[in-house]
Amino acid sequence: MVQINEHFLKLTAGYLFPEIGRRVSEFSKVNPDANIIRLGIGDVTEPLPTAIVKAMHDAVDEMGSRDTFHGYGPEQGYAFLREPIAAQDYQARGINVSADEIFISDGSKCDSGNILDIFGPGNRIAVTDPVYPVYVDTNVMAGHTGPADESGRYEGLVYLPVTEENEFVPDFPAEPVDLIYLCYPNNPTGTVATRQTLTQWVNYARKNGSIILFDAAYEAFISDEDIPHSIFDIEGARDVAIEFRSFSKNVGFTGTRCAFTVVPKELTVTAGSEEVSLHQLWNRRQCTKFNGASYVVQKGAAAAYTDEGRQQVGELINFYMTNARLLREGLQNLGITVYGGENAPYVWLKTQNGLSSWDFFDLLLSKGHLVGTPGSGFGAAGEGYFRLSAFNSRENVETALKRFQSAIG
Amino acid sequence: MVQINEHFLKLTAGYLFPEIGRRVSEFSKVNPDANIIRLGIGDVTEPLPTAIVKAMHDAVDEMGSRDTFHGYGPEQGYAFLREPIAAQDYQARGINVSADEIFISDGSKCDSGNILDIFGPGNRIAVTDPVYPVYVDTNVMAGHTGPADESGRYEGLVYLPVTEENEFVPDFPAEPVDLIYLCYPNNPTGTVATRQTLTQWVNYARKNGSIILFDAAYEAFISDEDIPHSIFDIEGARDVAIEFRSFSKNVGFTGTRCAFTVVPKELTVTAGSEEVSLHQLWNRRQCTKFNGASYVVQKGAAAAYTDEGRQQVGELINFYMTNARLLREGLQNLGITVYGGENAPYVWLKTQNGLSSWDFFDLLLSKGHLVGTPGSGFGAAGEGYFRLSAFNSRENVETALKRFQSAIG
Repeated sequence: MVQINEHFLKLTAGYLFPEIGRRVSEFSKVNPDANIIRLGIGDVTEPLPTAIVKAMHDAVDEMGSRDTFHGYGPEQGYAFLREPIAAQDYQARGINVSADEIFISDGSKCDSGNILDIFGPGNRIAVTDPVYPVYVDTNVMAGHTGPADESGRYEGLVYLPVTEENEFVPDFPAEPVDLIYLCYPNNPTGTVATRQTLTQWVNYARKNGSIILFDAAYEAFISDEDIPHSIFDIEGARDVAIEFRSFSKNVGFTGTRCAFTVVPKELTVTAGSEEVSLHQLWNRRQCTKFNGASYVVQKGAAAAYTDEGRQQVGELINFYMTNARLLREGLQNLGITVYGGENAPYVWLKTQNGLSSWDFFDLLLSKGHLVGTPGSGFGAAGEGYFRLSAFNSRENVETALKRFQSAIG
Repeated sequence: MVQINEHFLKLTAGYLFPEIGRRVSEFSKVNPDANIIRLGIGDVTEPLPTAIVKAMHDAVDEMGSRDTFHGYGPEQGYAFLREPIAAQDYQARGINVSADEIFISDGSKCDSGNILDIFGPGNRIAVTDPVYPVYVDTNVMAGHTGPADESGRYEGLVYLPVTEENEFVPDFPAEPVDLIYLCYPNNPTGTVATRQTLTQWVNYARKNGSIILFDAAYEAFISDEDIPHSIFDIEGARDVAIEFRSFSKNVGFTGTRCAFTVVPKELTVTAGSEEVSLHQLWNRRQCTKFNGASYVVQKGAAAAYTDEGRQQVGELINFYMTNARLLREGLQNLGITVYGGENAPYVWLKTQNGLSSWDFFDLLLSKGHLVGTPGSGFGAAGEGYFRLSAFNSRENVETALKRFQSAIG
């Protein structure tokens, strides 16, 4: 008789965003004329930069001609994209990452989920709380946890709270852990990690034989020169870390799909009497279960590294970060306690009057026709917080601030 | 201490195609002037049809304008693609598959590997021999097998030989199995399954509570009206089968990346006291670990379902199938025993004089500067066979046939 993966049955009520969608849809049915502004899901709104549009057109034309047609590409991605990433995102900042350590993919959600394929079942796993739900859910699906408790926390996972009490810097786990998910600039709190904090985590990993799964999907939004863009900017990290990056938010690729994962060649794990290279394991995983990202998409991503592309991507980032500043300052002027929104495209606010995150969601939706993301959806320690995304039009951001005032005034 | 997935270490010497690449590269170093013709890997050579090129250009333009920009799409794919698939690939043939049973992805290799995420560890798994290596390797990686023996067969897998002795129709397993991988039209043998054969397999699955993982990546190459294009054309299959399809070979998308998986809503598995829907499990898997296929790519795939697109895709298929016929007939004229090449873009030949598959590979490479795929690379029962792909230019096919004559004459 067929056996399903019964770990799936432990997953609690659906992914966060479908639940938001359900509530918005219900509200819209009753209020069909409400002009709802969505500051919830972190989805970009601005068009692709013209340099990228041109590169994709050229690539489509190549695919339309026999002489320049491209069939299967390298599973690891094309050199025309891996090389400028290595040169500009890493080496230009003095960070040692080479092109053949970069694996191009169709998305960071995929990579951060699929990475568990190369790890065994016996690891102790730490996540921050609140956290990007994909880290947790993929571990549940892989059977690395027990069932969830009432707060939604899964047995067996080590949760590291990040709240205003610890200034959003996670404490080290009471007992050693093997895999540690860190995301900086952070989703959902919009906070960043200083060089000192990251150095402490790298040292922790080196001392305890742990591996850091570092999600740097939002690094492009860092403007403060003292904040590291990569875990590999920290000495010793190449022995203990894997880094995920994405073109989704900086280049506007949420619907175009491209990302990459860096697995240093030094990164090994002892298995029996063998030192096993995680770079080789991930390469084998990708060659067996992935067939490369679309040629046209990779060509578009590569255009972000041209002079013109870099400038246009910079303007895009400035645009969203101006939104973030407006949200941050506007909410502060309303007397709301706000975190994030500097060096990160998310604003993390404290609900007023001790409202729960979902009650605040319902209040904002009903009174302001505004949609945000309840902090508790990201973890128990996110209760009483609320996430707003800076990915929106300027007009929507400005209107949203006015509606905030009337909704909670 | 971090534990890796030690099942990876059971994988035998790398995926087939890297080994071919290695031998070709060695030969080329010694013979830099050899004009090698590759009939090995099943990679398309002809450009994308103009209707698809136009649709992709239009989609790129949409992404370049704020009003028509697309961010995150549905994880399951856009209705503009799922609906014509359901209507034209299924309903027009009288097959009951609805649009919301179709999950769009970035490739069939991904889907046929990722599908194991929703199944448990205790299933008995059957594959044909020879077989598309991805089915086997992903089961090894998931820990569903023991180590490989000398012939490359993994302990715990049930191998169903398909050779000329059984006319390439696999016998039913001696003991019941839970998951059965079937691929028709078949890769690598180029043979097809009759309605009777598929009906017997569906009945077997219904009787034994098994699930058929049906790979129909090559269905578009069927011209014989009696050969089913889909497992769901067989009565009762909706309770026992999942189907994989791809745009790689028919539409020329090996480098563009789009595919889909059909999971019927009736398909359930008993887990404890619960009837669990595999449609829901796969939906959850995709929502958690995948973020949808690229908008531009989905728009391209959808153009294959317009009148113009259908006609152009038909011409592409005719082109490759003429190659297949030329290869088949040309080899037969040389006295070679040939299977496949009708209703399928692969020709499966018997090596002459009892040569091993790899010896035949080396002979063809050295004497004819031709690259094909050794049958033994697809499984122990493929020893003594050799696969040629019809995906090539006409000129290369014609030249290859001449070289065949001189190499083995």
